[in-house]
Amino acid sequence: MMGDSTRTLAVRALTREAFTPFGQVIGTRGARHYPINDGTTTRFHDLAKVELAGWRAHPLISIFRGRPFAPPIRVAMLERHPLGSQAFMPLSARPFVAVVAGDEDGRPGRPSAFLVGPDAGGLRGVNYARNVWHHPLIALEGESDFLVVDRDGEGDNLETFAFDQPYVIDSLDLS
Amino acid sequence: MMGDSTRTLAVRALTREAFTPFGQVIGTRGARHYPINDGTTTRFHDLAKVELAGWRAHPLISIFRGRPFAPPIRVAMLERHPLGSQAFMPLSARPFVAVVAGDEDGRPGRPSAFLVGPDAGGLRGVNYARNVWHHPLIALEGESDFLVVDRDGEGDNLETFAFDQPYVIDSLDLS
Repeated sequence: MMGDSTRTLAVRALTREAFTPFGQVIGTRGARHYPINDGTTTRFHDLAKVELAGWRAHPLISIFRGRPFAPPIRVAMLERHPLGSQAFMPLSARPFVAVVAGDEDGRPGRPSAFLVGPDAGGLRGVNYARNVWHHPLIALEGESDFLVVDRDGEGDNLETFAFDQPYVIDSLDLS
Repeated sequence: MMGDSTRTLAVRALTREAFTPFGQVIGTRGARHYPINDGTTTRFHDLAKVELAGWRAHPLISIFRGRPFAPPIRVAMLERHPLGSQAFMPLSARPFVAVVAGDEDGRPGRPSAFLVGPDAGGLRGVNYARNVWHHPLIALEGESDFLVVDRDGEGDNLETFAFDQPYVIDSLDLS
């Protein structure tokens, strides 16, 4: 696979606009905010759309601890959650990679890879919208914890797709 | 108020057991966990009970940015949310103070103050259960961001209570 440039995924900088088809960026920069608690706190309000479909659906708060990946990173499969969104908020300043793809007749199209790290507004995370193809957690640099908000409930909330030929992230340099 | 020892709140270390009447500690230590994602991730599962009562209730993911407090910290009022829980997960290693109280005939009893900071399992946060009296965010040491999971929807989800005489946290040394 290495050397087949059509299977190489370039890593892009994360912006709200670029991520819109796939969910939301969770961060303070450019977000609606207002003072609360007698002015001692600023609330950056409603940064992600929590989707909870299906029977007996309710939100879960969990912590995911990811082992670090390093290039070359193989993207051999993607998954999606037909019944709920899944938010990942890093609990450290270490970056991670969000790999997402649009749907093409029930299977993922060519993936996009975003490098997610802090900006001037602080830590940033992402919320994968319901049914959006994405790769499982790709932590970087060191073992990293993430607060995850996703869905519990009845019904099958996991679909996976294995690529015939894996994609590869050869470098974390932004394209 | 200073010097009136009956109004002085000592700060206690946070443990799951001590916090049980008020909600949950969000952290990995001692939490149920299992490997996912082909063993590259550990999931510490379902660490907080997200409560969403009332009409058109749905969860919100927001970021609260708190200005730092320093002793003496006046605890002049508490609030509670009759229709939903409220989780605070710090996005930094800076500690914060969680002030909570049991209910006595519709008003808060004597508050308890917990110093919340990282333990060997990493960052820790708290989830205030529905209708538990608590003080608004008390950040420490520097401006600090928290991921907050609480409730939106119809109905009045805020009740406040002002003490006739404030309590005071004179020191952050653990009692």
